[in-house]
Amino acid sequence: MWAVGSPQGAALAVAAAALAVAVAAAWRRPRPVREVLFFPCRPCCLEALLAEAEAEAAPARPCPCPLPRADTSLSRLVRRLLSARRSLDLCIFSFSCPLLARAVHLLHRRGVRVRLVTDAQYMGLQGSQIGRLRQEGIQVRHDQHSGYMHHKFAIVDRRMLITGSLNWTSQAIQSNRENVLVVDDAECVKPFLEEFERMWEEYNPTNYIFPKGSASNAVEIND
Amino acid sequence: MWAVGSPQGAALAVAAAALAVAVAAAWRRPRPVREVLFFPCRPCCLEALLAEAEAEAAPARPCPCPLPRADTSLSRLVRRLLSARRSLDLCIFSFSCPLLARAVHLLHRRGVRVRLVTDAQYMGLQGSQIGRLRQEGIQVRHDQHSGYMHHKFAIVDRRMLITGSLNWTSQAIQSNRENVLVVDDAECVKPFLEEFERMWEEYNPTNYIFPKGSASNAVEIND
Repeated sequence: MWAVGSPQGAALAVAAAALAVAVAAAWRRPRPVREVLFFPCRPCCLEALLAEAEAEAAPARPCPCPLPRADTSLSRLVRRLLSARRSLDLCIFSFSCPLLARAVHLLHRRGVRVRLVTDAQYMGLQGSQIGRLRQEGIQVRHDQHSGYMHHKFAIVDRRMLITGSLNWTSQAIQSNRENVLVVDDAECVKPFLEEFERMWEEYNPTNYIFPKGSASNAVEIND
Repeated sequence: MWAVGSPQGAALAVAAAALAVAVAAAWRRPRPVREVLFFPCRPCCLEALLAEAEAEAAPARPCPCPLPRADTSLSRLVRRLLSARRSLDLCIFSFSCPLLARAVHLLHRRGVRVRLVTDAQYMGLQGSQIGRLRQEGIQVRHDQHSGYMHHKFAIVDRRMLITGSLNWTSQAIQSNRENVLVVDDAECVKPFLEEFERMWEEYNPTNYIFPKGSASNAVEIND
């Protein structure tokens, strides 16, 4: 006979309590983020999405363009970016998509700390959004080696990783077969955060080396 | 008083048994794969790794090259690929690294079903390994649209995803800042598997369209 008050009864009660706690914890834990986006995606209008993020209380302005306001890979990517509340760390090889630049600028204006690492050779190409983002006050640093800074990842609020094959160009979004993976698994996010911080320090303008007589390069740096 | 045999006693016993089963299941479950690799990586010799995979029972042959047999991002990537036992589905934009081609060929010889999707414009560039892999009997299909097939992912045994920014080129491995993420989370792997199957069917040679008078293109297809 196991009675309440007996050692066996107490052990069973403890086991039941532990199970209840485990079930409650699993119930409350937010569902982990695992989203996979594929491109190309069909053209869509993201004006309402951007307007809503800009003035959360204001009603969305109607957009006169003929594009549908569809749920696409691009709208999902933009939604993930706009979910940033404190920080957005970007590491983008080629960044020429005006719409993604608008989303980044919007976050900067909203007080999110945006840092951007990019590739020295691609940042100056025609159509690049890097110069514009710098003019808007966003901190940009670039590599200084002969290889490419070829990453294409973003970290939202130091807890959500957005990574894949997609360069932030209209060509990639509209024409290429591409993938973007969104995860908040700490084991995935942490190494990317560390890599970002390593590069951010390594590409600090105080570490840049200018070949003798290259004064024209120096004026380009406004980080 | 709750006695064994009473409803309360039985409920506690069931709770304890459920807890024990949950703990045992968590204990037995293999640790999930979450690995992040960064490039560039320092040169290393992978002869022993390839020889070991080729003849698992045979002793590793010493390699006379002066490179160290180090644990690098490349050796870890190759190990993950060589762990394939049944299938390897590859979707690689630019594939010119001879060492990775050797690893893929080795798997093909070992009876692993290798399928490769690549980009039509990059597969013919100088140094591309695609022609060699086709000659060795590996099934290759390519896109037929104007945008790039820009993915860079692999799926091992339909359960482990290897994806990131890394093209399979020596330049990317040795000179670029790149990332590769290895995960076996079903929520991540499944969409990539489906995307692979979609492309594999879409790029079936029976679906290719040849412009009139382009007979010279037709002879290139040996899938």
